[in-house]
Amino acid sequence: MLKGISHTGIAVKNLDEAIKVYQALGAELGEIHDAPESGMRAAMVSAGGDTLELIEPVGDGGVIAKFIESRGEGIHHLCIEVDDIRKMLAELAEKGVRLIDNEPRQGIEGMVAFIHPKSMNGVLIELLEK
Amino acid sequence: MLKGISHTGIAVKNLDEAIKVYQALGAELGEIHDAPESGMRAAMVSAGGDTLELIEPVGDGGVIAKFIESRGEGIHHLCIEVDDIRKMLAELAEKGVRLIDNEPRQGIEGMVAFIHPKSMNGVLIELLEK
Repeated sequence: MLKGISHTGIAVKNLDEAIKVYQALGAELGEIHDAPESGMRAAMVSAGGDTLELIEPVGDGGVIAKFIESRGEGIHHLCIEVDDIRKMLAELAEKGVRLIDNEPRQGIEGMVAFIHPKSMNGVLIELLEK
Repeated sequence: MLKGISHTGIAVKNLDEAIKVYQALGAELGEIHDAPESGMRAAMVSAGGDTLELIEPVGDGGVIAKFIESRGEGIHHLCIEVDDIRKMLAELAEKGVRLIDNEPRQGIEGMVAFIHPKSMNGVLIELLEK
């Protein structure tokens, strides 16, 4: 079962500047996650009852650096919370949906797996089971 | 004050196919809005407690047609609900944020105004006051 959108990930060039931009809109800064091994540094910001994840590339080779290089700043992914990620992946695979991760892996907030944007109308979707 | 994300708008080539894709993920189809004068047809789909707006271009000249032509399918905008849209626009203008609409205009769900993506790290933001 789909529980809702956990967060919207936005690729930004400069995290500190981006935090100020979204604070100007009334969003509130939450946790900052440093993940240099994944080539990124991210800030969770609360937008009312919803959450944005501002993600800055660290180094040149990571997925966020590549995304910004090819498409510029902008929305990178939509994270959708589900109650049973393995069941969801199995159902999607059965329906012919192209998965990036056939098996869930440990993320910051729980088990995660990505669905390929080619199967989701150009939207990179992260599934999350907390 | 920022109340939260009202919906995430996704530009799609074929609305009926896109609805099936998001239903496969567990989302539920809500209202369909026909707006040929704006060059679009849109379906609201519930993703748990959140909402996605799947938007198909109608005709060639509209903003969604142009978006898909230049960037392909994908997330088009983020709609953020605020309690006082005129106050928010004034505050943003004062902070030097580039606005597409200096004045709110009537949308389907209430008064709306767009902020330029150049001021929001590549994200087209629609402000909504219901």
